[in-house]
Amino acid sequence: MSKNIVTEKVNEQLSLQYAYKKQLYCKQSNFQKVEIVEGTYYGTMLFNNNVAMVSTHDEFVYHDMIAHVPLFLHPNPKKVLVIGGGDGGTAREVLRHSSVELCDMVEIDAAVVEACKKHLSQTAQVFENDKLHLYIEDGINFIKNCKQKYDVILVDSTDPVGAASPLFDDDFYKNVYSCLSDNGIVVAQGESPFYYFDMQKKLCQIISTFFPITGVYNYANSTYYPGGAWSFILGSKTLHPIKDFQSSKVENSDLKFKYYNAQLHTAAFALPEFQKEALQAFTTL
Amino acid sequence: MSKNIVTEKVNEQLSLQYAYKKQLYCKQSNFQKVEIVEGTYYGTMLFNNNVAMVSTHDEFVYHDMIAHVPLFLHPNPKKVLVIGGGDGGTAREVLRHSSVELCDMVEIDAAVVEACKKHLSQTAQVFENDKLHLYIEDGINFIKNCKQKYDVILVDSTDPVGAASPLFDDDFYKNVYSCLSDNGIVVAQGESPFYYFDMQKKLCQIISTFFPITGVYNYANSTYYPGGAWSFILGSKTLHPIKDFQSSKVENSDLKFKYYNAQLHTAAFALPEFQKEALQAFTTL
Repeated sequence: MSKNIVTEKVNEQLSLQYAYKKQLYCKQSNFQKVEIVEGTYYGTMLFNNNVAMVSTHDEFVYHDMIAHVPLFLHPNPKKVLVIGGGDGGTAREVLRHSSVELCDMVEIDAAVVEACKKHLSQTAQVFENDKLHLYIEDGINFIKNCKQKYDVILVDSTDPVGAASPLFDDDFYKNVYSCLSDNGIVVAQGESPFYYFDMQKKLCQIISTFFPITGVYNYANSTYYPGGAWSFILGSKTLHPIKDFQSSKVENSDLKFKYYNAQLHTAAFALPEFQKEALQAFTTL
Repeated sequence: MSKNIVTEKVNEQLSLQYAYKKQLYCKQSNFQKVEIVEGTYYGTMLFNNNVAMVSTHDEFVYHDMIAHVPLFLHPNPKKVLVIGGGDGGTAREVLRHSSVELCDMVEIDAAVVEACKKHLSQTAQVFENDKLHLYIEDGINFIKNCKQKYDVILVDSTDPVGAASPLFDDDFYKNVYSCLSDNGIVVAQGESPFYYFDMQKKLCQIISTFFPITGVYNYANSTYYPGGAWSFILGSKTLHPIKDFQSSKVENSDLKFKYYNAQLHTAAFALPEFQKEALQAFTTL
């Protein structure tokens, strides 16, 4: 067997094997193994600890959906915080909104930023934007000590293992709530209803503890979240993600997207029955 | 490496490796290698030529979405034809609708039916239903020679390779149109906008040639269609899948589903922008 393969273990039964032509970057940081490879079908891919994070082939799906749902819901988002997302893709989409004056990004692992700046310009191009302020720091501490108010906070985290675990805790969301302006919105990577449903339920429950409006919306991309629907969880202080969403804002926008559009904004909140039933105690849609 | 692994090659870069505890069935038929294995996470799985077809873990997603979208759209479906679907899951969902008096199924490969009857009762239970009539025959010939009129035809096919190739052709859909009643509906497994988009476009174009109303709807399941959104293509003689859909019919139904619900019926037709744009010449929604 060729050595040029990254094996991602999804669960005890299924593994994904990504062949690649060339390894572009590999470093063991204080947090994880950070690796960038050049493949055929998926283009350039970032793996953290052998788990696919980004591929140039379809990163647009995830980044469209984490960013544009809250940013089009909010009537005038000016200050945005991204926690995690060191590849830059989420901040790139945030800064396409002309209302946004400042995007702070807090990434715990400098190696992720370094790797992407060197080899993943499709997402890391955003680091040249003057409106982006990068903090290499633990998002938990940043949010605890933060004196700013943000309009939108995006928690672009990995799965709840290692350094990302506290991002799935009460204390963190209590602080997120405090750092949001009066009609602020948080959106968090919400795991999968197929693969990590207990974690999704837990995160939904936590967010609903602090936010009067909590919703879950799904999307589907082909790599880095293997198979099936994946979810974002949205917590909102005042704005209802469907009733307060003005589709004309999207339709009249100069921005063009490959994945997001006005119909999909609303449709994404329609959940499969098993997911809807299990989350109905925590969601308000 | 353990020998108890089925490797499914998705494309030149990605392979899925399904480990299993025990092989329950394996036969080289005239058409393909038919294999059933017992796994841990995904339960019992059917593979044709090493491509995952069914898992007891999540077959409900695919079978809900191929069957209930057209069967709830149609005001009174009595006669249904399933082409392919030899595992029985699609016919099982069809026959939960009390209006359905007859469900014909045409499966080309007797080995698939045999394997599932022996080892996959979750789907193959339907073969005990008196309303089901199984024909072991090529669906292409069946539809060419068919004198019946069906209200709904479901093309539950594998990917367009080997015996399934002619199911993605003009002649086949010309005959499907002829075999449908005045307000008949066809739904076909429509491949993936991520992985087989050219095939999806081709099939959409063919169906739109014969049917005045053509729509595409997406779903996401975790196994047997690897990663991302997968699609069904719906062709309809008169009924519009959204405007003529009466959500009260679902909400007042005694049937309970794990995936399908009334909101999802409509939401599934909201396509990602790249897919919507590429298919807009062929779709009428």
